[in-house]
Amino acid sequence: MRPLLLAGSIAAIAFAASSASAEEGMWTFDNFPIARANQTLGTNIDQAFLDRVRLSSAKFGGCSAGIVSGEGLVLTNNHCVATCVANLSTQAVNYAETGFTPRSREEELKCPGGSAEILTEIVDVTERMHKAGEGLSGQAFTRARDAEAARIEAECGDAADARCQVVSLYRGGQFKLYRYKRYTDVRLAWAPEDRAATFGGDLDNFSFPRFAIDAAFIRLYENGAPAATPTHFRWNADQPTEGAPVFLSGSPGATQRLLTMQQLASIRDVVLPLDQLIASELRGRLIRYSQEGERQAFEAMDPIVGLENTYKRGRGRMAALIDANFMTMKAAAEVDFMQRYAQANPGQAADPWGQLEAVQPTLRELYPAMALLEGGTGLGTTPVAGGSQLFSYARTLVRGAQERAKPSAERLPEFADSRLAGVQSGLLAERPIYPALEQVRLEWWLSKTREWLTVDDPRVRALLGRESPEGLSASLVEGTRLADPAVRRALWEGGLEAIQASDDPMIRYLLSIQEPTRAIRAEWEEKVQAPTDRASEALATARFAAYGDTVYPDATGTLRLTYGQIEGTDVPGQRFGAFTTFAGLWDRATGAAPFDVAPKLLAAREQIDGDTVLNMAVSTDTIGGSSGSPVVTPAGDIVGANFDSTVLTQRNAYGYDRNVNRSVIVTTGAVTTALRDVYGMTGLLAELGVR
Amino acid sequence: MRPLLLAGSIAAIAFAASSASAEEGMWTFDNFPIARANQTLGTNIDQAFLDRVRLSSAKFGGCSAGIVSGEGLVLTNNHCVATCVANLSTQAVNYAETGFTPRSREEELKCPGGSAEILTEIVDVTERMHKAGEGLSGQAFTRARDAEAARIEAECGDAADARCQVVSLYRGGQFKLYRYKRYTDVRLAWAPEDRAATFGGDLDNFSFPRFAIDAAFIRLYENGAPAATPTHFRWNADQPTEGAPVFLSGSPGATQRLLTMQQLASIRDVVLPLDQLIASELRGRLIRYSQEGERQAFEAMDPIVGLENTYKRGRGRMAALIDANFMTMKAAAEVDFMQRYAQANPGQAADPWGQLEAVQPTLRELYPAMALLEGGTGLGTTPVAGGSQLFSYARTLVRGAQERAKPSAERLPEFADSRLAGVQSGLLAERPIYPALEQVRLEWWLSKTREWLTVDDPRVRALLGRESPEGLSASLVEGTRLADPAVRRALWEGGLEAIQASDDPMIRYLLSIQEPTRAIRAEWEEKVQAPTDRASEALATARFAAYGDTVYPDATGTLRLTYGQIEGTDVPGQRFGAFTTFAGLWDRATGAAPFDVAPKLLAAREQIDGDTVLNMAVSTDTIGGSSGSPVVTPAGDIVGANFDSTVLTQRNAYGYDRNVNRSVIVTTGAVTTALRDVYGMTGLLAELGVR
Repeated sequence: MRPLLLAGSIAAIAFAASSASAEEGMWTFDNFPIARANQTLGTNIDQAFLDRVRLSSAKFGGCSAGIVSGEGLVLTNNHCVATCVANLSTQAVNYAETGFTPRSREEELKCPGGSAEILTEIVDVTERMHKAGEGLSGQAFTRARDAEAARIEAECGDAADARCQVVSLYRGGQFKLYRYKRYTDVRLAWAPEDRAATFGGDLDNFSFPRFAIDAAFIRLYENGAPAATPTHFRWNADQPTEGAPVFLSGSPGATQRLLTMQQLASIRDVVLPLDQLIASELRGRLIRYSQEGERQAFEAMDPIVGLENTYKRGRGRMAALIDANFMTMKAAAEVDFMQRYAQANPGQAADPWGQLEAVQPTLRELYPAMALLEGGTGLGTTPVAGGSQLFSYARTLVRGAQERAKPSAERLPEFADSRLAGVQSGLLAERPIYPALEQVRLEWWLSKTREWLTVDDPRVRALLGRESPEGLSASLVEGTRLADPAVRRALWEGGLEAIQASDDPMIRYLLSIQEPTRAIRAEWEEKVQAPTDRASEALATARFAAYGDTVYPDATGTLRLTYGQIEGTDVPGQRFGAFTTFAGLWDRATGAAPFDVAPKLLAAREQIDGDTVLNMAVSTDTIGGSSGSPVVTPAGDIVGANFDSTVLTQRNAYGYDRNVNRSVIVTTGAVTTALRDVYGMTGLLAELGVR
Repeated sequence: MRPLLLAGSIAAIAFAASSASAEEGMWTFDNFPIARANQTLGTNIDQAFLDRVRLSSAKFGGCSAGIVSGEGLVLTNNHCVATCVANLSTQAVNYAETGFTPRSREEELKCPGGSAEILTEIVDVTERMHKAGEGLSGQAFTRARDAEAARIEAECGDAADARCQVVSLYRGGQFKLYRYKRYTDVRLAWAPEDRAATFGGDLDNFSFPRFAIDAAFIRLYENGAPAATPTHFRWNADQPTEGAPVFLSGSPGATQRLLTMQQLASIRDVVLPLDQLIASELRGRLIRYSQEGERQAFEAMDPIVGLENTYKRGRGRMAALIDANFMTMKAAAEVDFMQRYAQANPGQAADPWGQLEAVQPTLRELYPAMALLEGGTGLGTTPVAGGSQLFSYARTLVRGAQERAKPSAERLPEFADSRLAGVQSGLLAERPIYPALEQVRLEWWLSKTREWLTVDDPRVRALLGRESPEGLSASLVEGTRLADPAVRRALWEGGLEAIQASDDPMIRYLLSIQEPTRAIRAEWEEKVQAPTDRASEALATARFAAYGDTVYPDATGTLRLTYGQIEGTDVPGQRFGAFTTFAGLWDRATGAAPFDVAPKLLAAREQIDGDTVLNMAVSTDTIGGSSGSPVVTPAGDIVGANFDSTVLTQRNAYGYDRNVNRSVIVTTGAVTTALRDVYGMTGLLAELGVR
């Protein structure tokens, strides 16, 4: 019998998922391979460099960012501030169209619900966490671990400007307590015209050559004034050099490199197909919605861009999972690990691979209900309730009230005391709500949930009763008053009593669906999450034993450092040089969206040196969440911000392929040009030290 | 290394793709296993039975149908006449809403472009066809075969009421000349309210228990009068009995059971994902479109139903291709065949499996362009130009003019002399055109083609120039006059000169994209179709040698006979009895669409015997195209019309699984009830001999 999936010859590229090859790895700052990086790149960095880079790096929402002045100025991507820009805009005053160009700091506007944080301390808490789960299984195991993490975080202190987070690394192999300095007043300091940042739109997204000024500035505020940030990167707008070594510091969201082949098969067969198929339908609904009028176009712009980005990323990942060569390499690495494990554990009964394989049928069966009704699988991208903000408010209010009535350690972990501040600030932030768009999202979600779980599923009956997705979504959105922050505040502060007394239809609806949604979560935790966590922990231990500390953990949305060099590629399906210039942008422009140059940028064409490098490719190991990551020279200068990678690079969710892997960077030179020649941001230029 | 796809234990169910198990097979009428069927079912049918059944069976569009009176009356499904009903309806007089209930034959209305045919003769032409391709390869092979088929069809005669078709069976193992009596005047004689036929909508589609009167009558006309059809089924409205043997005669569209595992992997990895992902987006666009107003809802209803049907079928197929047990059975059957082949051909160099495997990388690379730009891959379901009727007219006109300028044997095969009559009647039939809907289709297609082939593909540049999908689709639809049949007739009759002189934008557009669309077709034929055909032919020969004539051919849209019995199932995911009743319908109704009972049906509730069997499950081997197939007793009585199968049954595209496989049938009893108690169709009842 021929192996069906893994057909084709094994490619010659060296590849081991377990022992990192040069330039592979999203390393934690407390386990960075300084010597190997220096050897690979010919550099001479040290611990002091790492500390400086760490303290100059910020996490902003789901993005990364780099501090570039002593007064809280931070460089990130425009797409990282897109929701902030949308929230600050109206159809009449639309900063996405015009760019946001405050003439002074007083005009910088607060991003609703925005916060940023800087990693200040890392402490090992592995022993405590492992002990907490000892002898337990199923949901008891999950709950005991969650409670211990909440306790550790609570003990870490509750300074208003601090956040503490227990981070699981190596899929449970290690636990670290991360302490952050937290800024809850983050203001928008500059954003270009949206089209300047998104030239080529979805078509050029995840590709290179690229011509996008995907950059923006935010500013950290403390006590109503710009925060003092003495440790920061030095702005360097010089033309970059091919082959130059760079470091990239950011918070990559999630990789799945340590998953077994059987776990990856579940992603390929179940997770990605569900996510992609139903996202594609939502995309169709939103595209048509956006064509129904100017208001609808304005409302749907940001959601469509986000959706298309996730969808295209999914296509790249699926391409990796059906790539015979790539998967053969992954399989070979697994065999190597299995053999080492067998040699190190002769006659041992435990088989972590077998345990994980045994979980897969249940995972495959439960995934649709868990993803659609509850979310938080850690696997997929389908937004519960289609991403409806009103639904999300109601869920936070209802569950928050129910959970806060219990002791912290017994709550759903997202409502532990240590996490309530974050929950509350997200809930109470002032944001615009577009009811018609909310209705589209909810209707789609109800309709897809009914389709995938089938109409006769009791959970679907609980969700819909005798109503249709169209009717129910319309009446919920029409009747709720949760768009008003004051209403949300009253319900949040009123606790369980206020919630139970509320006649708000969205609150009543969320109350009515708690039983089935909590039940699927409990079942998932019991039958999928807990056994997966236990087996993964065993695999992590085995991995350390087999490969030592040359192993880096999967990305988990926490700060990492990766390194590489500025260079193009020449692999099939992806051939390009390292740089693009403004001259290339003028060439690619057709005038028709999304290949139209933004008006202000176009007007400045004569002022701009066409040879200025606009974007560049680097070989650093990144993934979603790395957006906005500062690109740093060995001297600690910032020379760009990561904003993308290529479609082929999406395989790096599952494994690193040196030849293929490329990140896409907007240069500080391009940002300087935009600030100076297009948007007249003289104040910022002075602050950056640009002459 | 663990095999990734084929994990899991081999199920105990016996399964061999090559030697048919009892009740397996969509058999041709000239190779039906009479003895085995009689033995399996305990019946006593003979050649005379087969001939009667064949001559009482009709093909109608992509559906099947059964003749039930001597005056051309034919039973099929309501969903088979849905397009006819839509074409005959306006928003004001909407037969989908009201049902179509002519009080006399004079009120029966002609289905635009409708035709039906009865298979009258089968002749073996294998030798001629094989000889035509001897020593050739690539496109020369494909073209020589196509030309020979056109010659054979032309020699078969050109009586106005005949159609001749060379049919490839066993993927080129045999070629047969099928001669049909053809009816080009087909009128609608009865259709129920749409909701009576589609109760449960997409949610209940491909499922059982089921409660749908998915039946309709058409009538064959000849020379303006009802056709004489002395050979026909006897109407039998008795309550059916569980376990009773039945035969089902129809024209199943396409199965892929003889494909190798490598070919199936391409369908799983490339064909189905493309089809499903982009169909899902079109679905979203159409759903939102249908919500924009009553006109849009009316226009989009039929397209949405069709799209959702194809999409759900695709989901069932994908589920089969990732089902470890099912694919293990398929793989085991292939290994058995390979071993027999190796024993029978010791030392033979030729390896048809290897040849087919070698084609797959090219197939995977070319499929998106071929499917999107040209269609006709024989693999997928993506409609070229999104199914735009105006585009299709223009393509037929432009290519028809270009091809008719050549000798018949040198043309694209669809324009050979023997096929022109069908092309012309389709082109010139009067149909309503909904411009806004056409624009949605074209815009989606242009947008998806650009996305999948990428914006820098020269073919995409040829397709779009510097225009956007939105702008181009709008201007094409706005400017063209091809909605007018008289305009189409003038261009068809004017030939190449008229086409080249036309200033119709859709005609000019189709002229402008002939080069890239013909080029991808030529490349596909050369590199994919021809080598696949040659290797498949070799496999077919080997298969006959290994398994004798117990082998049946894949379905090809031509008449087949299958057999089984009335029964439910009890496999995981599919547990149900054999019957549903009208009482069950009343129970399932909630009043909210799609679970609302059609108004006239509901009004007749008191007249209807609730115990009357409405739908039933049978174990016959069917697939899309079998819709409308008469279900026949061993005595030649018609007792129902096939209209569906279950989602799990969709695996029968790739292999037969006796335990899972179930077809869904609307009974003649239910149809009789509807005619008598709901719609007052006394004339039809008399014609059917119902007292």
